[in-house]
Formats: sequence, structure tokens, C-alpha cells
Amino acid sequence: MVRPVLGAALVLTALPTARAAAPAFMPLPVKIEVRTGSLPIDSSFTIGTSGCADPRVSAAAGRITQRILRQTGLPLMGGTVVKLAVECAARGNDYPALGEDESYTLDVAPDRAVLRAPAGVGALRGLETFVQAIVPGAAGFEVPAMRIEDRPRFPWRGLMIDSSRHWMPVELIERNLDAMAAVKLNVLHWHLSDDQGFRVESKRFPRLAELGSDGFYYTQDQLREVVEYARQRGIRVIPEFDIPGHTQSWFPGYPELASTPAQYTIGRTWGIYYPVMDPTREETYTFLDGFLSEMAALFPDPYFHIGGDEVNPKEWNESARITAFIKDHNLAGPEGLQAYFNQRVSKILDKNRKIMVGWDEVLHPDLPQATVIQSWRGNAALADAARKGHRGLLSWGYYLDHLRPASYHYSVDPLGGPAAQLSAADAARILGGEACMWAEYVNAETVESRIWPRMAVIAERFWSPQETVDVASMYDRMAVVSRTLEWTGVRHRANYGPMLDRLTGGRPAEPLRVLAAASEAQGLGPRARAGKYTSLVPLNRFVDAARPESETVRALELAAARFVKNPVAGEDAAFLREQFTQWAANDARFQPLAENNAFLAELKPLSNDLSLLGRAGLRLLAAIEGKQKLPADFLDRHKKEMTRLARPQAEVILAAFRPVKVLLDAAE
Amino acid sequence: MVRPVLGAALVLTALPTARAAAPAFMPLPVKIEVRTGSLPIDSSFTIGTSGCADPRVSAAAGRITQRILRQTGLPLMGGTVVKLAVECAARGNDYPALGEDESYTLDVAPDRAVLRAPAGVGALRGLETFVQAIVPGAAGFEVPAMRIEDRPRFPWRGLMIDSSRHWMPVELIERNLDAMAAVKLNVLHWHLSDDQGFRVESKRFPRLAELGSDGFYYTQDQLREVVEYARQRGIRVIPEFDIPGHTQSWFPGYPELASTPAQYTIGRTWGIYYPVMDPTREETYTFLDGFLSEMAALFPDPYFHIGGDEVNPKEWNESARITAFIKDHNLAGPEGLQAYFNQRVSKILDKNRKIMVGWDEVLHPDLPQATVIQSWRGNAALADAARKGHRGLLSWGYYLDHLRPASYHYSVDPLGGPAAQLSAADAARILGGEACMWAEYVNAETVESRIWPRMAVIAERFWSPQETVDVASMYDRMAVVSRTLEWTGVRHRANYGPMLDRLTGGRPAEPLRVLAAASEAQGLGPRARAGKYTSLVPLNRFVDAARPESETVRALELAAARFVKNPVAGEDAAFLREQFTQWAANDARFQPLAENNAFLAELKPLSNDLSLLGRAGLRLLAAIEGKQKLPADFLDRHKKEMTRLARPQAEVILAAFRPVKVLLDAAE
Repeated sequence: MVRPVLGAALVLTALPTARAAAPAFMPLPVKIEVRTGSLPIDSSFTIGTSGCADPRVSAAAGRITQRILRQTGLPLMGGTVVKLAVECAARGNDYPALGEDESYTLDVAPDRAVLRAPAGVGALRGLETFVQAIVPGAAGFEVPAMRIEDRPRFPWRGLMIDSSRHWMPVELIERNLDAMAAVKLNVLHWHLSDDQGFRVESKRFPRLAELGSDGFYYTQDQLREVVEYARQRGIRVIPEFDIPGHTQSWFPGYPELASTPAQYTIGRTWGIYYPVMDPTREETYTFLDGFLSEMAALFPDPYFHIGGDEVNPKEWNESARITAFIKDHNLAGPEGLQAYFNQRVSKILDKNRKIMVGWDEVLHPDLPQATVIQSWRGNAALADAARKGHRGLLSWGYYLDHLRPASYHYSVDPLGGPAAQLSAADAARILGGEACMWAEYVNAETVESRIWPRMAVIAERFWSPQETVDVASMYDRMAVVSRTLEWTGVRHRANYGPMLDRLTGGRPAEPLRVLAAASEAQGLGPRARAGKYTSLVPLNRFVDAARPESETVRALELAAARFVKNPVAGEDAAFLREQFTQWAANDARFQPLAENNAFLAELKPLSNDLSLLGRAGLRLLAAIEGKQKLPADFLDRHKKEMTRLARPQAEVILAAFRPVKVLLDAAE
Repeated sequence: MVRPVLGAALVLTALPTARAAAPAFMPLPVKIEVRTGSLPIDSSFTIGTSGCADPRVSAAAGRITQRILRQTGLPLMGGTVVKLAVECAARGNDYPALGEDESYTLDVAPDRAVLRAPAGVGALRGLETFVQAIVPGAAGFEVPAMRIEDRPRFPWRGLMIDSSRHWMPVELIERNLDAMAAVKLNVLHWHLSDDQGFRVESKRFPRLAELGSDGFYYTQDQLREVVEYARQRGIRVIPEFDIPGHTQSWFPGYPELASTPAQYTIGRTWGIYYPVMDPTREETYTFLDGFLSEMAALFPDPYFHIGGDEVNPKEWNESARITAFIKDHNLAGPEGLQAYFNQRVSKILDKNRKIMVGWDEVLHPDLPQATVIQSWRGNAALADAARKGHRGLLSWGYYLDHLRPASYHYSVDPLGGPAAQLSAADAARILGGEACMWAEYVNAETVESRIWPRMAVIAERFWSPQETVDVASMYDRMAVVSRTLEWTGVRHRANYGPMLDRLTGGRPAEPLRVLAAASEAQGLGPRARAGKYTSLVPLNRFVDAARPESETVRALELAAARFVKNPVAGEDAAFLREQFTQWAANDARFQPLAENNAFLAELKPLSNDLSLLGRAGLRLLAAIEGKQKLPADFLDRHKKEMTRLARPQAEVILAAFRPVKVLLDAAE
């Protein structure tokens, strides 16, 4: 029996009820046909490959087998009968190429699954789909029988990791590459230098890393290792060396590159710095020729990112020599000077057979049309670049460091907003997008909890058909994918408990857990406004442990919304009452813990507010259930409280206000 | 101001209230004097060493600094002023020796701490005390000012890890060595061969590992690496090759060693096997001479464990040749034959300058007095050996695989029971003890949650003064130490969530979490009685994820005990009511998850019982609060339920019955 299904999202609720749980795919495949029965996954499970001359496929089959072992807890497999046959029609590229065929089909029957792909990289993508398809069934782990046809919507699906503001060790980059592969991302954009750290060994210019990194930099062997690690997973690595701004960390070693002569140290604060490179000295280009050529040889990808964002023109404007140069060369002010700089850099990259990628600001009529524009400014800027013949990537709307909810990122489309009006030819220049993980307010311990699971949602936006927009389905699947991603080794969930435990020095602190589950960490804006951060400030507080989005609160919001529609005693009312009761009692339990504890002291008002919400919630629940009217002063007072609670305290939002607000709005 | 305190346990509640939390030491030091003020731990923290010619101390200082960074979340330290000065009076042994001086003193003042030790190994112990002393204070992390004097009660404080029944990778052994060092253990007894696996590479007899290990064995380089890793932490490594029983995995490669000629395969089931070595053939000793001499060279410790336990005499009794040998040599039956075997092995070890260690069964009048007896039979057997002049170790009462509560292990003393009657000279032969982690029902994913945190409690028994017996203090401190041990890298807490998540394929399953927190995994007995296990059966069920002892249930038991003494509406009643309400509602939430889920289906009765307990708890609470008498049939019925619930279901105990029973007993 074959039941073709049109929208993949439908399938997830349409699987036969004899199954405990349907697979939670993310990204959703283009097409899923559900069939009857399921393929058991047990210790005899074996992957076979045929026609896959690409050695990456057999390596991936071995890795995937190991991950299936971890994910299911099955002991070593010693099977001899192939249960998943991988068949490649052709070898494909050794190094992943922009636009290569990543499609695959997956046919799962009760006795055997077959994964077919035109090229090796499609097989890599399909293997990840197979892992996501494993669910616990009535007899153990299984993959429901089905046929999947799948291919990506956009050819460039990336994550940018900032290794400059805070150091990100090689192991961290590598395990995130595994997680990226799991959600079919294919570009790691690696932000390797900025004002606060120069993270790459240069043999030609050793003082870059020696004096610009506090000793935290990648050796060239490590860079090659990461490139190979990514290649094995069908992921391209695009290095970014941000020039001519965001360059203070270059100057301790090579002050002659700077526009203003001075003794420089590594930047410790955040924001846009004054010191920028001097584009008027020929020696700057000699240096960049040497440096970029050296780096070009380390990174096989034909694309190379030169940043180009947020150049502060102050020093250029204040230098008589530089303003004279602008005048002499008939350049249109500082912007013209940056365009001149970019043209010179473009020639160096061209000589090294590299195609330039830059942020919005590099866009200029004199720039070669091959230059790819990465837009942090938005769809309008991106559409503008596309109309001017540039290929482009959207990053606006995908800034993970802003800690916005997954639904927000999900709503942003590279071809949305003004880009929706593009002609087919112009639209075709939009290659996809990249999420950005800037590292002012994350370090190696916290960064993964800010990338995942929201990155998986953005990956779906880049891969799945544009019509894939069901937010409820997305959240249901994200919750599962967040947990199964753990088996790749990524630590976005693992560090949560220990970081909370740290705040009490390991004393059991359930009231702190309750508070954390009711809170959501805030990102760049609120943290910048806290005004106390430098790269030396520890990121070991409640805000660093708390998650950007609370599953508990979302569940309560949904329950509250159902309850106000149908206000009867039932599971929703019981669930809300339990939580509100716990919140109401929590502050009295929390306050003793917070005595003389610097980490908890700042949370005292937050904890007090949580109990306020619990009490209000209980009263609202009773009133709505009993169809009683609440006094106007109660409603007024709590409306004001909701407005207040929508603002951050201690750099977190007490998200718990949202389900209470649902009740309050209904009670009015 | 110096306030000397007699019993260390007292100090923990006597610290000035201006401190949020007193350090939770485990093992408790011999003497703590609390002083005024505290030493701040911030990014400038630096350890200096002087007089410590032992390079292990500076290496440990570096490691400890890194652990403090992880534990506190502080960024890289760049301090130049020494905040913790380590001073050694002498170098001490390069390789840790039984009975060496492990004492130290630690003086913490608000500006500086000084750790003094007669030898390097004492400095290692004191560094771990310092880490445990770090607490969050009113201004950040700090160590309260104090003076500690400390030394171990017993010189042999060990953990036995069975790497045979299930494979334990090198990384796992190493991170457990870090955790062992953190609680001042000094012996890793490494059970390297048994019927189900021969885990060591022998260059002389390569077929031992080739045919006896399924490919899972330690290379000689890895063994040397582990020995060095342990040495750096002041831990001795005692290998155990269990002979002449428990030897089936030797025979696939070398069947001539067996008492009965046959083709042998690796053992897959548990229990005592029939195949045992043939002690009558001279070739057996030639083989053992070659093998043991090779192993003796790999393990520098002078002690060497030959097992000797549970020898099944069946094959000896049934062999005409062997019974003839027993008669010819005038041996006292099979036991006499084993004693003859042990004497021969003892001579081989003697030649290699090794002192034999064996389990109870090796005790025999003909055995050299230097032989150390490790007792799994109990204090009486141990006392018997001591009276006969043997030194001994207690392991009875410390079997971690039985999954008994920490309080049980805490109550067992190497010098308790019949051993308390020993003369001083005989008692001095009791060297200490070892906890045993047998691996029938654990694998690399679950073993750490069965070792820790209960191992820390046993470590306290071995280290701290005999009078250290306050169970409430022990549990309070164990809860903290369990969490802080995570920063050593050990994974006893980390795998809990992912293993539960696995059961639902990553679907969020709060009702499963509630059930798990109310349950306690059962150990050897109940699992063996389940009768379905072999080394190939997956350990991926609820029982494998669940913890041996529930913190939640303990907290509820304490609350229930306080409540029945003073049955008023208050925090205890509120806490109990919240939990009971959640339990009562949980089954309706759990059952849909369990539909067609093989892993949850077996838990349906357990879940139903939890809701039964919740309802009973609520009713009891109300009755006791309201001083109402409950109907006799309610009491009778629930008394029977309590008896039923004290028995395992699905190999776990629904520990939740205990707080309800406290109320029930009070209601009668």
C-alpha cells in the first residue's frame, strides 16, 4: 500500500497510529510517501555502499553506524546482511562545490532500505535523513517504511562562527560540523579575525597570531584538519579575514598596517573600533598579497570572505595624508576609499583564483560582478545587490546571537520581503543564507546552546520548500531534533545543568531550576546595554546558563490558549495549576539559597516576580474556570506588571509572564 | 580569630551565616578550624609550588587550575601573584607506594592559601581539598578562611573496575581516575580478564586478545598510558588476571590451558562457568610464567592480583587425570588443588618481585603470609585472614553493582563487625578496602552512574576518621560532590537525560522524567533474576537510565518524616502536596507516550502505581493535617500496596512508595 502525501508536514500527524512516534525530520524533505510496516533497527543493522567511488560515503556510513549505536544504545553491530544499501550514480566532487547535486531518494521497506543519490554528497544528506527516521516502535527501534524524495532549495546553507571575540577550540568546531551535517548545512563561514583576536597562524607574518591572539589560535595543521573534517561531511569552509575595519588585533604585531601610527594592543571591549587599516599605503597591499595568498592556499574553497563591514571612517577623515590620497585619486570620500581598497584586494584574490565575498558595505559599482554580497542589512539590500548582478546571501534575520525565538528566524526567507519581487533571473542570484553566531556574549562553554537547536530551524528554511511554514510542526520537530542532535556530540544541552549547578557551588537547587525553566536569556542588545562586558568578563552567570527559548513556557502558553477557548477543568487546567502552584511557592524556596551568593543575588527580583506570576495565574485560572469577574484593580495592576515583565531583568526575560498574560487577556 | 572545632562534621553547619554555603568536603578532613574572611577566587588566581621536586605536583597544579576554571566558569587566569602556595618538604616516591605519607595541611587566609605536605602525594591530596573548598560567596567564588589538617585512615583505598564483562574504553578509565583522585582514592584495581573477555594485549600470547576480546582490548601502550595517568594522580594500578576460574576467554586462543579439551568461545552469559584452567599440567605454569612475567613488567606496582574466586570444581572432579593428580600429590581435594596452583603462581610472581593479592578463596595455610586477601565474603573472613597473619582488604559491603543506597555502604567499616574485635596488631593488617564495579549489567555508557557519587561515600569511609558516621551530613555533602565531580569530566550525571530521551526517540517526555525521578534502578540480584541477560543484550532501557538512588525521593522522605512529627500546613506539606499532585496526574500523561513504544510499555504498571501513590499521598496528607481517621480498608489496602511496591518491577523500585509509607505508618 502506497499513500502519496502532498505536504510533507502533513505526514507527521498522518502516520498510522500503530506507531508511537513519527520521525521528526528537520529539514523536512521535499516529499514523503508513507508505506506500511517498518524496518527494525537492531544489532544486526549494517550499511552497504555500492557505486560510491567517493570514499567520503563509506567513511560516512561508518560514522553514521556509530551514531546509530549511540542514539539507540545498541551494542556493536555484527550484521552481515545489508539493511541500508547506499547507491551512488556517480562520484561527484572531491571537495564540495557550490550548486552540486545534493539530491537523493530514500526507500525504506520492512526488510531493507535503499538510498540512491546522483553523487556522493547526496548520499551524505540521505544518510542523515535515515538517522532522523529512527524511532522507538512497538518492538524496539525501527524506521517506518516510506519513500522520500529530497533536494535542497538553496545551494548555500551556512553557519558563521566567530572564533575571534571568544576562542572556540578545534574540537568545538568539529562537533558543530557534525551537527551541521546532521541538518544538511553545507557551509562553515569561519570568522577568524576581528578586533579582539587574530586566530590563525601565518608563517609569513607570525606576529599576527603571536601578538594578536593571547596564544589562542589555530595552527595551519589544525586549519587543514578542520577543512578535511568538513569536506568529509560535504561542508565547504569559507574563511573570513575582516578588512579594513575590525582589524585591531592585526596591529599589535604589524602596527604599520594601521591608519594611525601607535602601539596597539588586542581589543577587549565590544563595538566598532576606530583603528582601521591604511588603504593608501602600497605596503598594506604587499602585506595583504603575502597574507591572503598564504591563506588562499590553506582553504581550497573558491570563495573567500574579506568582511568589509562597519568601517569607521574617523581615522581616515582625521588624517591629512589619507584625505589627500582620497582627493588625489578622485575617490568619493571614505566609502570610495574602501571601494578602492576592495578593488585592490579583489585583484589579489583573483590572482589566487578566489571569488570575493563581503558584507553589504562592499557593494560598489566598481566591484567585480562575481563578488558575493552577504547581507546583514536585510532583504532589501540583498535584492538591491541581486538587481545589480551580484549573487547574495541573507544573514539578516538569522543572527543567532540576538537570541530571538526560533519562530522569528523561521519567518525570515532569503526570498522574502522586497526580494519576493525580484525577477526570476535576479532571484536566482540569491544563493541562500547563513546564520551568524557572533561571539561577544558567548564562549566555548555557552556557544552551542546559542547555535542549537535554533540553527536547525534556519537550516530547514534554507533546505525545505518555501511553503514549509507550519510553526507548530516546526516547534514539535525542533524539540525532538534538539535532543537527537546530542548524539552527534554537540553540547548545546549538556552544559545547561552543570552551568546552573555552578551557581550554587553544586548545592542541589531545584528552585533555581524552576526559575531557569521560566526564563529566557537575552542576546546582544540587552547584554550590550548592561554595559559591563569585555572579553575578560566571565560568562558564568544565570543569563549564560539560561536558554534562549523555554520549552516549558511554550507548553504553558499553548495550554493557556486552549484553556481560555474552553475553560473547563481538564488536563490543561491541571497542568497550568501545577506550574502556577510551583511558581507561587518557589520564591520562598529560592531566597535562602540566594543569601550571600553573588550569582543568585541578582535574581532575587526575578524570583519574586515568578511567585507573583504564580499567584496571579492561580487566581486567573480559578476566575476563568468559575466564570467569575475579577476586580478591576487586579486586572489593571497585572496588566502593568505584564508590561514591566516584558522587559529584561538581569539580562533575562521572565518568559513565564506570557501564559499568565494569555489568561489575563481572556479575563478582561 | 581562630575557632577550633573538634568534629569536622560540625563545622559544616557552624560556618558563619554570612556565607551562603559551606564547603562540602568528601572525604571529610580530619580537622578543620574555621577562620574569619575568605580568599577570593577570580581570574587572577595562581598556584605556585616550592620545594616540590616531584614533577607530579606542578603538573597537578596545572590540571587543578584548569579544573577550577571549568568549575567556576572563569576565563583564563593571568595572575602573577601566587594565591595558593604549595610547599613540599620532600619529593617522596615517584610511583605511589602503599603506606606512604599522604598527609597535608591547608591554611587559607583572605590573601593567600598555603598547602604544606611532607611529600608530593600529600600535596596532590591537598589540592583536591582546595578545589572542594571553593564556594560561591557574596562577591563571587571564594574559599572560606580555615586551617585543615588531614591524613588518611587506611593506606589502601581502591576502586575495582571490571573491563571484561563489558568493554570500558581508555578515556573512560582515565576520567574515572580523575574522579578517584578528587576523592583521594589511591588504588585502581583493574579486572582485566574474565570468562567474557580478555582485555589485554600480550605479545607473547597474542591469541589471548585476538580471540578472547571481540577486538576490544588495551594495547600495551594504552596500559602504560593508564599507569602513567594514574601515577600522576598518586594512584596505584593493580592488574587482576583472574585464575584458575573465570578464564573461559583465555581458552579460544589457548584451549590447552583448559581442564577439558574442547573448542572454546568467549562467554556471553553471566554466572560461574564450568571451564577452568588445568593446574595439573606443567605447560600451564610455563604459559603462566611467560604471561605473568610479561604483565609484571607492564605494571610497576609491587602488588599483583590473581583473582582466585569462584572456582567451579566440576571439571576437576570429573577428570580422571586430575583426580589422580590430586591423589598422587596428596592434595585436599579441589581446594587443595587450587592451593597447589596458587603456590605455583605465587612462585612465578615472587620471581617477578610481585606480592600476590587474591579473593577470599585463595586463603590457605600453605600460602605465603605476604599474600593480601581481598574479602568479598565479609568482615569475619577478613578478620580470620588477619588473625592468620595476612594483610587484607574489605570489598564486601562495597559492591557498587548491587546498587544499594549510599547509606548502606557508609555503614560498612573495614574494621567493623567481627573485625572490631581484632587485636591492634591484627587490625593493623587491614589495609583498607576497595569498592567493586562488576560489569555484568553496566556498559561504558552506564557504568559511571553506578560508580558515582556512591564511590565518594566509600572513599570517605576509607579516608576519614572512623567516627565520621553522620548519615544526614553524608547525603548533603554527597549531593554537592556528585555535581562538582562533573568538572573532572566524569559522566555519571551527563548521560542520564540523553538516556531517558532515547526511550522516546527524543520526544519531550516530562512524564517519563517524573517517573524516573521516582524510581531507583536495581542491581545484580533483580537483574540476574530477570534471566534474559547476556553480554549482547542492549543496556538501553529505563532501568539503565534510572539512578540507583533518588534525591527527590529522599527529600520527600525527610519532608514526610518532619510533617508527621508536626502535621501543619507549611513548606513540607506544600512540597509533598505538589509532588503527590504531579504523581497523581502523571499516569494519564504517561500512557499515551507508551503506546506502541517497546521501551515505555514495560513501565505502564509502574506509572499506574505512581499515580496510585500520588492519590494515596494526597489523601493521607489531608487526613493527617485535618487529624481525621482514615477508613480501615484504605489503610489495609495501602499497607498491602506498600509491601508489593517494595519489590522490583521492570527491574526498578518505585522508590516513591517510601515517603507515602511514612505518612501511612503515621496515619495508623
